[in-house]
Amino acid sequence: MKPIGVFDSGVGGLTVVKELIRQLPGENIVYFGDTARVPYGIKSKETVIRFSIENILFLLEQDVKLICVACNTVSSVALPIIKSHFRVPIVGVITPGVREAVYATQNKRIGVIGTRGTVKSNAYEKQIKQLDPSMKVVSVACPLFVPFAEEGLLEGGEVLSIARKYLKPLNKFGVDTVILGCTHYPLLKPVIKKVLGKDVTLIDSAKQVAIEVKRILATEGLLNTDRKKASHKFYVSDNPEWFTGLAARFLGAPVSGARKINNV
Amino acid sequence: MKPIGVFDSGVGGLTVVKELIRQLPGENIVYFGDTARVPYGIKSKETVIRFSIENILFLLEQDVKLICVACNTVSSVALPIIKSHFRVPIVGVITPGVREAVYATQNKRIGVIGTRGTVKSNAYEKQIKQLDPSMKVVSVACPLFVPFAEEGLLEGGEVLSIARKYLKPLNKFGVDTVILGCTHYPLLKPVIKKVLGKDVTLIDSAKQVAIEVKRILATEGLLNTDRKKASHKFYVSDNPEWFTGLAARFLGAPVSGARKINNV
Repeated sequence: MKPIGVFDSGVGGLTVVKELIRQLPGENIVYFGDTARVPYGIKSKETVIRFSIENILFLLEQDVKLICVACNTVSSVALPIIKSHFRVPIVGVITPGVREAVYATQNKRIGVIGTRGTVKSNAYEKQIKQLDPSMKVVSVACPLFVPFAEEGLLEGGEVLSIARKYLKPLNKFGVDTVILGCTHYPLLKPVIKKVLGKDVTLIDSAKQVAIEVKRILATEGLLNTDRKKASHKFYVSDNPEWFTGLAARFLGAPVSGARKINNV
Repeated sequence: MKPIGVFDSGVGGLTVVKELIRQLPGENIVYFGDTARVPYGIKSKETVIRFSIENILFLLEQDVKLICVACNTVSSVALPIIKSHFRVPIVGVITPGVREAVYATQNKRIGVIGTRGTVKSNAYEKQIKQLDPSMKVVSVACPLFVPFAEEGLLEGGEVLSIARKYLKPLNKFGVDTVILGCTHYPLLKPVIKKVLGKDVTLIDSAKQVAIEVKRILATEGLLNTDRKKASHKFYVSDNPEWFTGLAARFLGAPVSGARKINNV
């Protein structure tokens, strides 16, 4: 049975794979991490679109039935274009996260944190207001969170202090709900929670993304009904050892046999 | 008169351009920053070599007379290969830094700090011992220093605290000289100095790189003797605005008109 394709600029998208495996244990998955060109968050829209198209073409070669864009930067800046190019269903991470946040907020004040690219695109704010124009949104970029997560610096005084600086506008604005608009950020949940306070709800898109994927597969009659054990394959454009070393932190389980491909 | 070509994975190489302009004010310079694929420090040898060859081909199209590899990662892992491929003289940043450090140390204990790629390659240690086998060397990777420098987080408690963790082995080893083995690190000199103590000499390769470039141009009869004002051109593979925004911090002067090219 055809696999679900998932891609990300690097390793962060594995937080989405983790949730897909939980909700769709019978589905085969092919993951591609563009580790030769990671990170995307600081790159221009035009370049992110070009890289995304190359990644999708690789996944299509693997005969995937649906593509999940497990990268907030790509979902923010490139999704409309790539959806218009390809016939395969493509699911991004913005809409599912927005839906969950709008549902969760009580005081209609939502915070969004992400890479510079994601924040600059304003994609979250636009979609939130489209769903409910009465919402108030404040977005901030937290560029050091990605290197912190990749270096495993998930707690301690330094991270806490920098998180306080980044998240100050959110506290000031009185948000009760914050979207973790980058697949790396769930790793920093404890620190973010500490700074924002325990009454603020953190929205991690992964759960809603997997729900959306499940809904589309069911609607299209594409759910895998084989009884065979599902296969999970991992491809990267560089450094499979580096990827494998980090993978467990994001996936919650070790990855074996990540393969390097030269498509980029 | 033909220009000097300089390339780096991004913006860090401008610290070398700054020194070239100081020592060779009459020379035309063409700089290329591979901002679409930055950073190189976490990428594999094979990928760094491939990217470097593409960058060199672009500089050769600009008709350069010498190429300066203003990136420690490339100089560490790719220099022998790229030197063997091309006829144009190619100067890296390792040998000049090593020469200066071996000259500067009194107690024969040298520290090297750099990206993971640079440290893993062991290029500095090999070259130091080749020049003087009695030297003792300790190398540590400081992966968060690049994001700190790019985010302009050059001082303050968080940086100081992380620098203390990274540099502990150097203090313990009793080095009296430390090579800043990454073009971003000169921006963090004050913090590094504070942690290592004022008696430790910090070696910034840029000065020696420019001396080496000058020596080669003089030997080969390639020095520019025009009386015209020198031209400095800057090309990037992505995000000229981002590059221009950061450039002043590295070059010490603003960059105007960085142009985006699509060669990668």
